[in-house]
Amino acid sequence: MQRKSEELKRRLFEIYDLQSVAELLRWDQTTYMPPGGAAARARQMAMLERMAHEKFVDPAVGRLLDDLRPYEEGLPYDSDEASLIRVVRRDYDKMVLVPAAFVGELESHLAASYESWVRARPADDFAQVQPYLEKTLEYSRRLAGFFPGYEHIADPLIDFRDPGMTVATIRDLFGRLREQLVPIVRAIAARPAVDDSCLQQSFPDAAQWDLSLEVIRKLGYDFERGRQDRTPHPFTTRFSIGDVRITTRIREDDLVEGLFGSIHEAGHAMYEQGIRPELEGTPLADGASDGVHESQSRLWENIIGRSRPFWQFFYPRVQAVFPEQLGQVPLEAFCRAINKVQPSLIRVAADEVTYDLHVIIRFDLEVALLEGRLAVCDLAEAWRERYRQDLGVTPPDDRDGVLQDTHWYDGTIGGSFQGYTLGNIMAAQFYETALSAHPEIPAEIEQGEFDTLRRWLRGHIWQHGRKYTASELVERVTGKPLTIEPYVAYLRGKYGEIYEL
Amino acid sequence: MQRKSEELKRRLFEIYDLQSVAELLRWDQTTYMPPGGAAARARQMAMLERMAHEKFVDPAVGRLLDDLRPYEEGLPYDSDEASLIRVVRRDYDKMVLVPAAFVGELESHLAASYESWVRARPADDFAQVQPYLEKTLEYSRRLAGFFPGYEHIADPLIDFRDPGMTVATIRDLFGRLREQLVPIVRAIAARPAVDDSCLQQSFPDAAQWDLSLEVIRKLGYDFERGRQDRTPHPFTTRFSIGDVRITTRIREDDLVEGLFGSIHEAGHAMYEQGIRPELEGTPLADGASDGVHESQSRLWENIIGRSRPFWQFFYPRVQAVFPEQLGQVPLEAFCRAINKVQPSLIRVAADEVTYDLHVIIRFDLEVALLEGRLAVCDLAEAWRERYRQDLGVTPPDDRDGVLQDTHWYDGTIGGSFQGYTLGNIMAAQFYETALSAHPEIPAEIEQGEFDTLRRWLRGHIWQHGRKYTASELVERVTGKPLTIEPYVAYLRGKYGEIYEL
Repeated sequence: MQRKSEELKRRLFEIYDLQSVAELLRWDQTTYMPPGGAAARARQMAMLERMAHEKFVDPAVGRLLDDLRPYEEGLPYDSDEASLIRVVRRDYDKMVLVPAAFVGELESHLAASYESWVRARPADDFAQVQPYLEKTLEYSRRLAGFFPGYEHIADPLIDFRDPGMTVATIRDLFGRLREQLVPIVRAIAARPAVDDSCLQQSFPDAAQWDLSLEVIRKLGYDFERGRQDRTPHPFTTRFSIGDVRITTRIREDDLVEGLFGSIHEAGHAMYEQGIRPELEGTPLADGASDGVHESQSRLWENIIGRSRPFWQFFYPRVQAVFPEQLGQVPLEAFCRAINKVQPSLIRVAADEVTYDLHVIIRFDLEVALLEGRLAVCDLAEAWRERYRQDLGVTPPDDRDGVLQDTHWYDGTIGGSFQGYTLGNIMAAQFYETALSAHPEIPAEIEQGEFDTLRRWLRGHIWQHGRKYTASELVERVTGKPLTIEPYVAYLRGKYGEIYEL
Repeated sequence: MQRKSEELKRRLFEIYDLQSVAELLRWDQTTYMPPGGAAARARQMAMLERMAHEKFVDPAVGRLLDDLRPYEEGLPYDSDEASLIRVVRRDYDKMVLVPAAFVGELESHLAASYESWVRARPADDFAQVQPYLEKTLEYSRRLAGFFPGYEHIADPLIDFRDPGMTVATIRDLFGRLREQLVPIVRAIAARPAVDDSCLQQSFPDAAQWDLSLEVIRKLGYDFERGRQDRTPHPFTTRFSIGDVRITTRIREDDLVEGLFGSIHEAGHAMYEQGIRPELEGTPLADGASDGVHESQSRLWENIIGRSRPFWQFFYPRVQAVFPEQLGQVPLEAFCRAINKVQPSLIRVAADEVTYDLHVIIRFDLEVALLEGRLAVCDLAEAWRERYRQDLGVTPPDDRDGVLQDTHWYDGTIGGSFQGYTLGNIMAAQFYETALSAHPEIPAEIEQGEFDTLRRWLRGHIWQHGRKYTASELVERVTGKPLTIEPYVAYLRGKYGEIYEL
């Protein structure tokens, strides 16, 4: 058994390394690659991914998993060995159901769809992508069809990104969250607007860059095992637990985008840097799900990064870096500015209160499309209608409406949005638990100390990698199933104060 | 046959891509990788190289080559198809002779040897590396032993780097070159020293960086298909013909190192950028040999980059960038300074006239070691003695003597140095030919025009990649076998003038 387990790990290590190398190629492609490298790069990434896939769906892996079943059953559920076999089996059983020919066909289609979207968005031309999207919907349904016995057609698609989550669970959570959010947004809209003009001055790029490095270093992002570079769309990527890199984007007319972008990505990265080194080279050396990953980035970006204790410590430093711009702006006004709530059209630029409404709209539309209740030709109109209802704003065009996110144009429909809001809900539930164990955390943050919080997150969440599903993790860490109460309480408390509701 | 040829190319393309990806990993390792990435990186590079090697020595490749022999024989010698099969067969026939176990053993040994050298050099402790070097010599002899029928034991080792070259040929060329160089160096030493203090002022890093980019862009290095980064040891690397990158190292107290380093690497890189795109993905998409590669870097660095016409164009620009440092230094004095000849201990810092003596010493010592005429325990002393004889300087320690280059400590003995001087010899012979076809080249360079030279080099050398051996290429391009006469004439003419010999 020991020998078979070693053999399985040897194979997994090679697959992990192939995938990690493909990630490095992708990182280089978006950071430093000259344009002439594009053709070879696409080919080389595809080769590595194909090799990794072939090595994973190799029937020998299936046989090893079968042979290891009695061994696994004799081990404690949360031992590394049992968890590895369990998670690999879950992945393997899913992967082998999807024919390689289908994957190839889908990838070619999505590449063409993405190309079409790249042209259609600036031209505000939904009609151009509509046939692609119709085909993507068909592919998404076929993909779900490979997984027998699901309750809802979107379930297998959601399961790729948030294992164990289902439409039933998410619909319930999101439905109740929406009921809470819509009135809060309306109440805030009735209050005087917050003045955030202090954030829209000229903040020189180099100073912003250095500031972002200083802040995330202080939070605990380990530069011995990571680095920050620039890309148009920020992301986090891992080539090993010892090399987890982030990227950011800085705009000179806006202090918020670069700084909070860096904090957000550092949150993702600290999660992966915090995985136990013993899990390196296995599928356990990864985040538990989209939702759990997002809970870590949003916790640092919003719950910590937009909190008053945080800025009690950092604001004098920021004022010292930008004395002309912020020297005369009081802490109070700055904190209000970075927490301004304003219903808007664009998800990625949305504030903390309205953000989830953007996500819930997309989730509901995805589900409606998959169920056949909504046709692609009616999608743009359905989008506008929901924005009017939920956010009180109506997109004047599709560019800032249904064409705004890349997700449906370079990926399948179903499963790609729920993680953002699941992450917000989890973040609040995790943080509430951390606070009850360590009520001193906010006072420490006021002193620029993040050790207690970081140690708690590493001990309870980061170190486990993918050993537990999101639901298991939430139960283990907080003693309760996932619930919106802590998140709603957090939003009510914070924004009730800012807007004197 | 068409099908078999396609099958061969498909396999070669995958091998090329695996090797290119390994090169990207190496590039990232020396440019941007955080320290924590080292362990996984070494493992991932080794995996890719092993995969590439296994795919190349696959007996199926041998069968394809056998099957393709009649097809090859029916094709013109210099057709792409025939050249590909010929070159691949040459590589394959060599590769399959070396057992994989031996390669693994050698690599482990060299890794340990390199680690020892990294400690031994600063400590000036040759005794520490001596046992490693003795073992390396033994491995080098065993490696040569896998190739039956060689005339000299160093021949198979040289053949890895400069295919077709032999000790007999090189000994003859180098012997005659040394006979010419030693008296020139002595004559120069008897003349008043050139004042190069203008080069050792403070030249701010950022200005040097921008200047280096400006110069190599003007020479023709294509930034759409390449980029420059910083590393402690400059190099050129290729991930595809569309992505050939260089690195450089800038010292603020020295204008020469960064600028000429960039020009040198741009010379290597323009060669690879100039390979015909039809050869992409095959072993033909590479330089013909170490010597030919070096001929291109040294041609641009020395014959062009240290020439008066070049500086007639660029010097006013450099004076504008560094007005305080060079505003009062006349062109004439600057050109003399960058061509100052001074026998010294360190190869990589040597001037154009003494450089080859450094190389010839190493080549002769390598051959003596392999022949058994010299024991490793006597190497340091033999090194000192040859420096005294040939250059008139004696290393006061081994740090700047036998320990100075990494080559013998992280590679086999035999074959690693001759390319530098073969390159110098070829560069002069190529340039002489280019000049007789286009006598207008120097006048164009005075105007900052490099098109004619670049077009000539691309047409005669670059585009062919590895289709021809160095000897074939020299004959084809210059109509003569490789000869030292143009090189000696070039050195005599240039330095005779500078030093009024």
